[in-house]
Amino acid sequence: MMKAAFYEGNRTIRVGEGLSVPPRTGEVQIEVSHAGICGTDLHIFHGHMDKRVSFPHVMGHEMSGVIHALGEGVTGYGVGDRVTVMPLSPCGQCPACSAGHNHICQNLKFLGIETPGAFQSLWTVPAFTLHRLPDSLSLEHGAMIEPLAVACHDVRIGEVTSGEYIVVLGGGPIGMLIALVAREAGAKVLISEINPFRLELAKALGLDTINPKEADIVEYVNKQTGMAGADVVFEVTSSAAGAEVMTRLPRTRGRIVVVGIFTQPPKVDLHRFFWRELKMSGARVYEHEDFEKAIQLSASGQLPLDRLITEIYPLERLEEGFRQMESGSSVMKILLKCS
Amino acid sequence: MMKAAFYEGNRTIRVGEGLSVPPRTGEVQIEVSHAGICGTDLHIFHGHMDKRVSFPHVMGHEMSGVIHALGEGVTGYGVGDRVTVMPLSPCGQCPACSAGHNHICQNLKFLGIETPGAFQSLWTVPAFTLHRLPDSLSLEHGAMIEPLAVACHDVRIGEVTSGEYIVVLGGGPIGMLIALVAREAGAKVLISEINPFRLELAKALGLDTINPKEADIVEYVNKQTGMAGADVVFEVTSSAAGAEVMTRLPRTRGRIVVVGIFTQPPKVDLHRFFWRELKMSGARVYEHEDFEKAIQLSASGQLPLDRLITEIYPLERLEEGFRQMESGSSVMKILLKCS
Repeated sequence: MMKAAFYEGNRTIRVGEGLSVPPRTGEVQIEVSHAGICGTDLHIFHGHMDKRVSFPHVMGHEMSGVIHALGEGVTGYGVGDRVTVMPLSPCGQCPACSAGHNHICQNLKFLGIETPGAFQSLWTVPAFTLHRLPDSLSLEHGAMIEPLAVACHDVRIGEVTSGEYIVVLGGGPIGMLIALVAREAGAKVLISEINPFRLELAKALGLDTINPKEADIVEYVNKQTGMAGADVVFEVTSSAAGAEVMTRLPRTRGRIVVVGIFTQPPKVDLHRFFWRELKMSGARVYEHEDFEKAIQLSASGQLPLDRLITEIYPLERLEEGFRQMESGSSVMKILLKCS
Repeated sequence: MMKAAFYEGNRTIRVGEGLSVPPRTGEVQIEVSHAGICGTDLHIFHGHMDKRVSFPHVMGHEMSGVIHALGEGVTGYGVGDRVTVMPLSPCGQCPACSAGHNHICQNLKFLGIETPGAFQSLWTVPAFTLHRLPDSLSLEHGAMIEPLAVACHDVRIGEVTSGEYIVVLGGGPIGMLIALVAREAGAKVLISEINPFRLELAKALGLDTINPKEADIVEYVNKQTGMAGADVVFEVTSSAAGAEVMTRLPRTRGRIVVVGIFTQPPKVDLHRFFWRELKMSGARVYEHEDFEKAIQLSASGQLPLDRLITEIYPLERLEEGFRQMESGSSVMKILLKCS
């Protein structure tokens, strides 16, 4: 049976028979193997994005799978090919697209938000979204490519170079992946996190950690850097506390990357920007080169992706996955087996 | 008589006999010709920087003059040379200096704040602060080099290029100079200002203007840029309103330069940084290359510096100058004749 998980509003998920959508011209239909649950999916589940989705809504955008059928005009791929999807559908015509910033298109459709997503056994998507998975990469790890591409994009926007001292505020899946990608780039990495499970996991992965409720992070970073400050700070907490401390950590001309999604404008110390000539960049999703980098990094086997996958559930247990994420306990990335 | 204007605290200025400080090794004594009153001097006058100055304090750091005496070991300059001063004294040893960021040294002394300034007829300074004024540059214009160097630094930090659309929030002396320097770089410039005198002056200088209390600046900028947004926004108002609107104006991957000195952290829409991948840089004072650029630009005669100098008073009328700046009426830059 073709199955799908439907969000029906009001924190309700129903898993039932899905609709197989035959691929049209330029599209492919993928048999979804694994799909990760993203914080964005949890936001949808909580009703915060009810205006962007259509009901009943199939979410999910972190996935791996095998091509099941090809629409007209699709070249370069065949049935049985192992792939992942970069879930962006830009308009190609707005000023952002014209400037080459398709990934932040002013009319961007995000697959799995504005369109049906990957939490189903058969998913039909435009072929231009595909990235091929190398044979050496498991389908479980393939489902990690999308969040890993976010991290690759963030580290690229942060212009992290070898030998730099970087601080990641927030040790959830994206923060952890940023830390690992930055370490691969040769940086020294400190993760700031308050959740004990995440702190332990980061330590187990060999990362330096600090709990800012127990120690003074500014003092610690200054000590570690000979009173210079950090080269780059990644704000991944979306919290007022994160926005407050992010300006106190960088060195003169140090960089801040805003990764967290702030629903309210926090107070930001603009005097510190002036005083130390700080630079701050927002980073949103990824570009194709970030997907390629993520695939190359994960295929190299250098990243401990297995340690970040804390559960693999059948699709039917999506709602249980959400509950576990809400509890904030022993959870990092939950994958769903979708077919 | 060697005269000086002394700030004695409590909004009080006394002009009286000054102390001629013979130049020591590596120093020069300058006969100050003209000195501009900066917003920072007004802050000092208002008592906001009483912890940084020593009483009685001689302020002033925008100046032109003629070398009056040379200390031991000073080469490359002679008595009678026309000069201006880059009023920064870095420690040379802190992490910022080691990284080459001497102008934002972690122990920076600012001449005219942490040391006596230019509001006196004879000023003794380190020779490394000197920049030679070309013969084609009047001493009145020479006193404009320091604020013009601020603008050159800001435009350089903003990476303004020909054909770009830039918005300057705030049309005081620095905002106006940023607009003029950006226009020289080939940019299209909009100045946002609410003061009628400043708006009229900007228009008279051929700059596009908007009063954000009378028109919707976001709508206007979107229309002017084919719905793309501005390439660069300079925040020079130090206001909550400026901090609010600065994130709404730039295009995808557009830049914001924080020039204004915010005494309180305003709310900043970090979601917009994420959404459009905005970049923001703080900009503080200048480096030597900005002084050279400012001298070259002003010597070229391209900039309407005369129009920005609204008064030239004798040193004795410093307090009157402050009162005029407080009134916010028909004032742009006031120069003092110091000798």
